[in-house]
Amino acid sequence: MSEMLDFPQLCAESKQLSGLTPQDEATLRELAALIVPALDAVTERFYSTLAAVPRTAAFIEGRVEMLKKTHRAWLESLFTRDLDAEYAQWMYQIGAVHVRVNLPVEFMTAGMSLVLRELLLLLGSSGSLDAEAKMRGGAAIGSVCGFSQLLMQKSYDSGKLAGELEKFLKITGMSRKLFDNLASAYKD
Amino acid sequence: MSEMLDFPQLCAESKQLSGLTPQDEATLRELAALIVPALDAVTERFYSTLAAVPRTAAFIEGRVEMLKKTHRAWLESLFTRDLDAEYAQWMYQIGAVHVRVNLPVEFMTAGMSLVLRELLLLLGSSGSLDAEAKMRGGAAIGSVCGFSQLLMQKSYDSGKLAGELEKFLKITGMSRKLFDNLASAYKD
Repeated sequence: MSEMLDFPQLCAESKQLSGLTPQDEATLRELAALIVPALDAVTERFYSTLAAVPRTAAFIEGRVEMLKKTHRAWLESLFTRDLDAEYAQWMYQIGAVHVRVNLPVEFMTAGMSLVLRELLLLLGSSGSLDAEAKMRGGAAIGSVCGFSQLLMQKSYDSGKLAGELEKFLKITGMSRKLFDNLASAYKD
Repeated sequence: MSEMLDFPQLCAESKQLSGLTPQDEATLRELAALIVPALDAVTERFYSTLAAVPRTAAFIEGRVEMLKKTHRAWLESLFTRDLDAEYAQWMYQIGAVHVRVNLPVEFMTAGMSLVLRELLLLLGSSGSLDAEAKMRGGAAIGSVCGFSQLLMQKSYDSGKLAGELEKFLKITGMSRKLFDNLASAYKD
């Protein structure tokens, strides 16, 4: 699957669709010195919130320490690495891991919302940046979060599964209602 | 489907998962006077970007003027209406409209990223707010975008469709590979 995707093209399109400009990428690098030292706390708060909500807690139970390491490394990468086709592929693969554990797509959005909020608060509370730098930083942070999430959600291939099901129902002549009924009647 | 959801509960959980606090909701109301007069331009830029990318342009072609009206009204509601169970249900229904046109879920994320960026730039460029107010405003805007997107993406029911397909394959004894092959061989 993943080898069929054109990651350089997907990367370029995703930047356009999230508003991430070359200037934003430079801004993110400039923010690294301010932001990176505070990222441990961002990761901690992220997992505390997920642990406090029963439906998300179920996805992280027993794996929190391991997940924190990956999460913290990813957060830092937003401010330190090239946001290129290789990054796009990495995000796509992280998305695929979420798909494999059947994480509902809206929980990924929840997670990104929490990260974004914490990063904006960090930026806003800095005493060393002026209003102009904070404005540029906020836009860059907003877009890099959107860019990353878009790439991860690409793995959900939501259109593909729904489209495949539709074709399958046409092949078999089965109605969606019958399919739903069969699926809901089935017990393991 | 939608009548089976407990919207008050979904609303509360989604606020927790996007970090949206009662203080944020008050902040959003305070920002209305600043933000609302500039929203026409946000909607315009939103649709210009979607129109400039071929894969998103296909979803809006011929309907842009109608879509702009709904989009502009929704944007204003972020700053002016109660973000309650009724709002949660509205967002869920807007999500369902996106599902019906087979919009890939990551394009919804792209759209929200563009909106968020524009709102943060508007906030940051204000001459009348101090640094503290901008910081609180940025967090509130980040969370209300996440909150709304989470509710819309709930409609994708990504877990449900994948789970139903899995059960169906068990019922029929069909492999996923055969299913995929059948689906990809089918021509309308």
